[in-house]
This record gives sequence, C-alpha cells and structure tokens, in this order.
Amino acid sequence: MTQIPTDLPKPPKLKKDTLRVLTLGGLGEVGRNMTVYELNGKLLVVDCGVLFPEETQPGVDLILPDLNHILDRLDDIVAIVLTHGHEDHIGAVPYLLKRRPDIPLIGSQLTLALVEAKLQEHRIRSTSIAVEAGDVEDLRPFECEFVAVNHSIPDALAVFIRTKAGKVLHTGDFKMDQLPLDGRITDLRHFSRLGEEGVDLFLPDSTNAEVPGFTPTEKNIGPVLSDVFRDAPKRIIVASFSSHVHRVQQVIDAAVERGRKVALCGRSMVRNMSIAEKLGYLQVPDNVLIDLKHVDNYREDEVVLMCTGSQGEPMAALSRMASGDHRIQIEQDDTIVLASSLIPGNENSVYRVINGLLKLGANVIHKGNAKVHVSGHAAAGELLYCYNILEPNYVLPVHGEVRHLIANGKLAMETGVPEENVLLGESGVAVDMRNGEARISGAVDCGYVYVDGKSVGEITDQDLKDRRTLGEEGFVSIVIVVDRKTKRVVAGPDIHARGVAEEDSVFTPMIPKITEALEEALNEKSSKRLSNHQMQQIVRRTIGQWIGRKLRRKPMIIPVVVEHNQEG
Amino acid sequence: MTQIPTDLPKPPKLKKDTLRVLTLGGLGEVGRNMTVYELNGKLLVVDCGVLFPEETQPGVDLILPDLNHILDRLDDIVAIVLTHGHEDHIGAVPYLLKRRPDIPLIGSQLTLALVEAKLQEHRIRSTSIAVEAGDVEDLRPFECEFVAVNHSIPDALAVFIRTKAGKVLHTGDFKMDQLPLDGRITDLRHFSRLGEEGVDLFLPDSTNAEVPGFTPTEKNIGPVLSDVFRDAPKRIIVASFSSHVHRVQQVIDAAVERGRKVALCGRSMVRNMSIAEKLGYLQVPDNVLIDLKHVDNYREDEVVLMCTGSQGEPMAALSRMASGDHRIQIEQDDTIVLASSLIPGNENSVYRVINGLLKLGANVIHKGNAKVHVSGHAAAGELLYCYNILEPNYVLPVHGEVRHLIANGKLAMETGVPEENVLLGESGVAVDMRNGEARISGAVDCGYVYVDGKSVGEITDQDLKDRRTLGEEGFVSIVIVVDRKTKRVVAGPDIHARGVAEEDSVFTPMIPKITEALEEALNEKSSKRLSNHQMQQIVRRTIGQWIGRKLRRKPMIIPVVVEHNQEG
Repeated sequence: MTQIPTDLPKPPKLKKDTLRVLTLGGLGEVGRNMTVYELNGKLLVVDCGVLFPEETQPGVDLILPDLNHILDRLDDIVAIVLTHGHEDHIGAVPYLLKRRPDIPLIGSQLTLALVEAKLQEHRIRSTSIAVEAGDVEDLRPFECEFVAVNHSIPDALAVFIRTKAGKVLHTGDFKMDQLPLDGRITDLRHFSRLGEEGVDLFLPDSTNAEVPGFTPTEKNIGPVLSDVFRDAPKRIIVASFSSHVHRVQQVIDAAVERGRKVALCGRSMVRNMSIAEKLGYLQVPDNVLIDLKHVDNYREDEVVLMCTGSQGEPMAALSRMASGDHRIQIEQDDTIVLASSLIPGNENSVYRVINGLLKLGANVIHKGNAKVHVSGHAAAGELLYCYNILEPNYVLPVHGEVRHLIANGKLAMETGVPEENVLLGESGVAVDMRNGEARISGAVDCGYVYVDGKSVGEITDQDLKDRRTLGEEGFVSIVIVVDRKTKRVVAGPDIHARGVAEEDSVFTPMIPKITEALEEALNEKSSKRLSNHQMQQIVRRTIGQWIGRKLRRKPMIIPVVVEHNQEG
Repeated sequence: MTQIPTDLPKPPKLKKDTLRVLTLGGLGEVGRNMTVYELNGKLLVVDCGVLFPEETQPGVDLILPDLNHILDRLDDIVAIVLTHGHEDHIGAVPYLLKRRPDIPLIGSQLTLALVEAKLQEHRIRSTSIAVEAGDVEDLRPFECEFVAVNHSIPDALAVFIRTKAGKVLHTGDFKMDQLPLDGRITDLRHFSRLGEEGVDLFLPDSTNAEVPGFTPTEKNIGPVLSDVFRDAPKRIIVASFSSHVHRVQQVIDAAVERGRKVALCGRSMVRNMSIAEKLGYLQVPDNVLIDLKHVDNYREDEVVLMCTGSQGEPMAALSRMASGDHRIQIEQDDTIVLASSLIPGNENSVYRVINGLLKLGANVIHKGNAKVHVSGHAAAGELLYCYNILEPNYVLPVHGEVRHLIANGKLAMETGVPEENVLLGESGVAVDMRNGEARISGAVDCGYVYVDGKSVGEITDQDLKDRRTLGEEGFVSIVIVVDRKTKRVVAGPDIHARGVAEEDSVFTPMIPKITEALEEALNEKSSKRLSNHQMQQIVRRTIGQWIGRKLRRKPMIIPVVVEHNQEG
C-alpha cells in the first residue's frame, strides 16, 4: 500500500477507451460524496452530497463539491446515480441541477422521493428514473446494475458499472446487518455473482474500517426501547436522525406496545416520515400519530415525542427543550432518549443538551449508558467478507477520513489484494482504468465551495480566516477624516472596538499616538503626498504594536481613511 | 436525591460555629476547582484551579473562579490547601497570591514544586508548607489531616477537615489503582479510620461516576508500550500530558528496554520532568535522556521523543509535526503513540493531527486502537468502595458536569446515603453545617473570569457574544462624515466588510440607500436635529435589512458617524 500521494499533477488528457474515476469529494473527509466516471466523452455522476462545516469554518451552512470541474461538460453527463437519500450523498444535487435541470436522476424510490422534496424547495423540476435492486440501466457507454445494500436509511443501492475499460463496484454507504428490520440485506449472492464476473475496481465505504468486528443489528434496539418505555413514568421524548426510518419505526412499535401516541417534532422529521409512510417504508397503525399541538390533550404517560436534534444542533427541537426555549417544557421525570450516534466534533453540544435536560429533572438515556444506537456502516469484519466474496483486482477506499481510508486499505491487503493495487488518495484524485488495469493518474484541485446564506462560492478561505481572527480576537477600527488636498487630519481619530478588552488605559492613549505618527510621516514626506493606503498602514502598525504590547492580543486592525474636501 | 437547585438565594450571614462550604468552581463544569471553607470568621481554601475555554468562548486563554467573593476577606484566609498539581487545581493560585502573596500554600512536595514553578513565572514569592500523608496541620479553627490518594499525577492528597461544626473529607481527584507504579495506593486503611471517626460530609470526585466498573491499572500500559517499541522500525514519538510522571516513566522504561535514548520535547514537558526527576518521582538511568537538538546524532531506531500535544493543541509539538511545521520532520514508518485520553471537545483537533501524521506515512497508535491510556479518576465501582468504607452522612458530589454529579449522587444513594442527604449543586452553591448536620443554604453568583492576553476579568460575556457574531457572520462598517451643525453628510458613506460574502451586487446599491434614508429622516425631523445615535440607528436598520434580504445573513453592522466642522 503506497502512502497517500500529495502534490499529484493534473490528470492527463483522457485517452479513448480509458475510464477515468474522478473523485470530487468524500476521500479524506466525511461528506460531499461525489464521483465522476468518464469514458469516451461521456460522464456518469455517482452521488452529489454536501459536507457539514466544522468549527474552523464558522458561519458556513454547507460545503459543496467543486462542481467547476464538470460545469463545462454538463451536456456530456448521462445521469446522476444516487446510492441513498442521506444529505452527504444527495444534498448538492440542487446546486448541480440548477445548471442543467434535465440531467436524469437515477435511484431507488425512497432516495428519489427525498431528493425531489429537496428539489421542490429549490423550485427545480427534475427528471428521474426509479430503479430497484437487480435492474440494469443502459447509460452508454456505461451500464449500471443495481445491488441491494443495507444502511441506516432504507432502500440503499450499490452500483456495478460495466464499461469496456473495466468493471467497477461502487458500494455507497452500507453495512451487513443480517437481520434488518425490513429483511432487505446487503445482497451477498449478488456480490458473489459480480465477483465471479470480475470486479476490476472496488470503491468501498471506509467509515468503520477502524472498528474491529461487526456492527450489531438494528433489531437489538427494539427491546432496549421497549424496556425504557415500560419504565418511563411521564413523557418520553426520543431524538434521532430524521431520515432513520427504521429507528423511528422501532420507536413507534415500542410506543404502540406501551399504548402511547406518537407526535413527530421538527420540520425534517415530519417531512421525511410523511414520505416514508406514504411509500410504505414506515408502518404506522391507525390512531397512533398525533399532531404536536394536540400533545397537551393527552396524559403525560400517553405520549412519545419523536424529534430532531440528536447532535445538539442549537436550533433543533431537543436543544431548545434543554434550554427551556421550546413550547414543550421538560419536567421532572420526563424520559429523554438520544437514539443516535455522537458524531465527532459534536460532543460539547450534545453534553450541553444532556446536562440541560438532567438539570430540568429528566432521565436521559443515550448511547453512553444504554444500547440505543448501532452504526450504519460496515465494521472491519464485514468489510473482510466483502473483499473475500468480491476478490477485487484494485481497491480505492472512499467515504472516510485519511485514517479510515488507510485502515480499509489494510483490510484489503489482508485478504490478498496486492499492496500496489490498493489505491489511496484524497478528494480530487483520479484513477484511470484501461483493459481492467487501474492506476492513479493525477488529481484535480478540490477546494471547498461554501454555501453561506444565499451565497454559493462567494465566501473564500480568506473570509473564513478573517472570521476566525474576528471571532478569536475581535477588531479595532480607527476612522480618520483627512483633507483631500493637504492630507491633514480634519476629524477623528474615532476608535471603535468589539470583542476586545476595552480598557481605557489602553484605548485613550491611542488617539494622540495616531495623530503623532501621521504628523511625523507627513513631515518626513514633506512635499510628497501620503496615499490613503500609506496612512492606513501607519495607523495599522502604530495601533497593532500598541495593543500587542498592552493587551498581548492581536485584534484585527481596521484603519479607515475618509477623504473630505474642506471647501466641499 | 433532590434536583439540581436553580435560583437559590444568596446564603445568609454565617452564624457562629457553623461551617460554610462555598464552592467557587468545579461543580457542573470540569475545571477551576476551588472550595472555600469558612468558620468563625476564618477561611480555608482548598484548590484554586483554572478552567480551559471551549468553542463558545473564543480567544479566551483561561477561565478563573470568581475570586471577588473572597477578595475583601484575604486576611482571614488561614491557608490554601492544594490536593495535587494539575492546572485545574493549581492554575489560579498566582491570581489569588497576587492579591496577598503570604497566604500559606499547603500541599505535597511535588504539588508545591509545580505551583512554585508557576509562581516564579508570575514573579511571586510564596510561603509554602510541605505535608505528607498522615500529617495533621493545625489551621485554627480548622484541623487538616492529609490522606494519600492515587491519581494521574504523583503525590496527590485528600484532606480531612475537622471543625467543631463537623468533619469533611475532600478527596481531590483520585482513583484506586491497586497496583500503582509507585506503590502509593489510595489509603483505604486511612479512609477506614476516618470512617470510624465519622465523616459528616464527603466531597468526592465525580468525573467517572457514569463509567461502570473499575479503572484499569496504569501498569497495564507498560507491556503495550514495550510491544509497540519492539516493533517500531524507525523513530518513536510519544505524546502525553506533561504532568503525567508515571506515563513518562513507562515510556522511559520501554525505551531503556529497547536500547533507545529519550528526548523530551515541549516546554512544560521539559520543566515538569526536570522537577519530577530532581525530587525523585521520575527515575531516569544515566545516559538515557538526550537533548532534543542532539537527536540527529542518533540513528532513527535509537530514539524516542516524549512530547506534548496529545490533545491536538495547535501550537504544541505534535500538531506542528503533523502539519510539517516543526524541526522534527515526520517520515514514512515513524511510530507515533498518543498515550493519553481524548478530552471531549478535542476530537476534531486530535483526529486532524492523527490524519496529518498518517498522511506523512507514520504509524499512529492511540487509545482508539491500543490500550495506551487509562483514566486518572475512580469509576463507579471504586466510588462504591469509598462510600461503603466511609459511610458519610452527607455527600456533595464535586468535580464534574451535571451528568457526573447526578451519577455520583445515585451511587451514594445505592450504598445507603439517604436521598435527602445527597446535596447537589453547581458552582457557587453553599452548604452550611452545624453539629454535623448539613444543608444547602444558598448560592453565590459564580460567573466566569476570563484571562485574555494580559487582561484578567476585562473580557465580558457581551464581548464573547460579539466575538461569536463576528466569527460566524463577519461585519460591515459604514462610515459617514457629517457636518457638526447641519448634520448633512459631507463625506462617505465609506463601506468596509470582513468575513462577509462581498458581492458587488449587494454592496454597491447600499451607498445611495444610506444617503436616501438619512436625507429622509433629516427632512422628517425638519427643524429638530438628528443625534449621532439616531443616525447610527438609521444606518444600522437600513443596511441590516438590506443585507438580510440579499444575503440571508446577519453580519454585525457598525455605523460610524464622524462629526466635522465645515469651517474647521
């Protein structure tokens, strides 16, 4: 297994009958999964998701794959295949379809329903082709065969891509729960047939490659919920992901068993479960679902609220309940269940919510003290089964941070994939395949495209650096009004600071310092005029040094020079 | 067990012969541990630590307990007892001693050595009294007896405080490793004698009260390190806490076993280990320690670097190595061991470091893939032993978030402490005891005191709110120069923005909008003059609404009105 390559050149011009696998996201990061397959002038996109920002990207709403790499090729795209309905696989579809709405979307019924709900919000009408496991779509020069896989959302599909250059199995996210709630297992018989046909390149989900053993079955959670519900004296509030249909199903089942009604809470929860129920993925007996606003018509031990906010998102239902800022007021002996994972980076937010709920007297059940969550991704043991059944020639681990990709690559090698055939790379890496032989051919620059309010791609890394500086250090702005001709200061300096320790002993002496420094510079220059830029530099330097010495801080210094025509 | 009380009144004036236990930090938070015992006009302080900020407190260096509650009583303080040498127990001592340097510091030899190194940096000369387990100090009206406890730093002490109002056992941080490296166990015989004498009030460490079972012994780590060192083909770099003498000891032992030299790396690592070695807590054979700058004189398989940065701190040695920004350049097949916990909230930083090291080709061992860390705190099983041996009348769980305090209270109840005798509260809560009977008597306001550069207590929560807004949204500043008399705009508007998507289509139309809005207001007011404040309000409203509509963002709007005397 080679190292993760860095400083790769741009991939060369693609030759005839060579398949290029260009990764635009999801390698070396968890999110914005997108892969572009190219052969003889045609493109096939698999997944088009978003990445959620972390604390180093303050204020950013979403991060998109860099679509610029295909914007001049939109007419060559034969289809977008969507493996399943999670945001990190479908969230960027509207941003691509805005450019060309008639690209066909191909996916399972549920996946398409979820992406269409999203497209409606963006007022985009799409063309979609629903497929089922076993279906084969002719998307020349690609042929796609779909394979049932099991994940934490129903109706996920892997896609087997046949081309004249070679055959690729792209799993999407999956695990191998042998007793899934809907009986729809990852189809290892199908994998076996593909293995016998020959898998030249395998792109497996790496999320849990570091986790030894096997992901437990989702069904284990039912009895735990049942016990919790039996013992709950008052209201029960369960938080989970709003797309986790089977988790919600088990909450509904436990509620029915204990004679409780269920109210859905949170916009995405209501929307997704309505879709899932309509399409038959969620089974709800009559008279179980009630509207959130009717909850008060029932006794406290007659209701279950199923809500969003399991990751401590500050605006979601659960966080607002924990801080007393929701119409549902948490009371002593309410039971709260966080039936969800704890995504790394969310620990402080989630523990803040848990502590808040405990302070209000609630009993809080979470994965730290009860088995109320199982992962949606295959652990190392499951991945080994896949490698052995498929016997791929080449492996390109996807969907994970560097540590996950490397761990997955090691598993491949343990099952006999030759070290040189384990291809490692980060988002942007291109793998070229011809006659079933694959190699890394280069990489494209795969920068983040930030969605920030209404703006897409306008916020730059420099803006985020400014935000981090402003957030850590605050700013000091110094306004001086100068005569347009003489450049003498005619008003100001006017000093404003935010987020800085505003000590008079520091700020008051700044005013004469600025004036002095400017006078000095003007005199030095004598006949020559100072430009506004030079004046700004003088102010920035003078004040930066002064504050650095006095406060040991480095706030952003914003010198503003306004010109004024005295005779104006 | 009652709920965590909120909205407690201020504690009443303290009566004669009543002991007050005033918590100034460490309850409902992990850090700034400080408790003030008061009896008949005298105060005894136990611990005086700092809290490390989280992401909602950007730019803050440290958080102190609110010392204002005792600043007017400095002369009444008989001593500061320090249970052990961790920052969250000793870090605020310099800020208190600055106000009265001759308050006696009482602690074990190592604890005092560490606090004195810190005081030297603040140029404070202190008065200290070294004690050992078993010692009794007469600090009228308090009598303190010290008890050996075992923790992740050597020489930790619990303190048993005898007063005429009742007897209190204050554990400080501890666990009950039965095979500690230095043979110094938490002295359960001593606990037993105290239990027989009678513990009226017990203040136990709650950190691991949620964790079932027992914390494994530190000694388990030695063989794991030995195996890792045996298999390492090139350099070995171990990161851990710079005060964890026993962890460093085991690294040195493994290095000696494999014939490697050890170089210490990181300022606090070098300083603390030098103290520990001088005092005999760290045993280093001759010719094992080498200076970091001589590392290159040795073969790669002859050295171990022992460094700081196990929590992903961006400025520490390990992070800088991971980003290629350190004189030690990580190479293919170097072995890195993070022999440390992963403190909640640090996940993203730590994984960023791990991914960076892996990308450079290193092999990374951490608690996620090997048993290279054990906790320093007693788990639930150990706490049960304590409750049963001590049989305390009252319990006030300390040192933990709300979830930890509640879990610890439940353990107390399971061993037979009556529910009403489990006292729960957050920092600021006061417990009054008389004739061995204790109750919560109120609470003081226990706000955060922020250390930010050179400023202490100057940064307010409003400043931090401003920083968060600036960090998330950036700002737009609008400068207008107005004539002092007419209030007509004579120069500007001058618009500056940082951290905002600066689209011309949004910003350019703002200039006429501002002018229009101001003109309109001036005309409305006719004879009446607009104040600068009113003009600022108009600018803020106009621009805030415009940007909100155009960008769907809420940057901070800073209107600056500079007055200018036209005739000036």
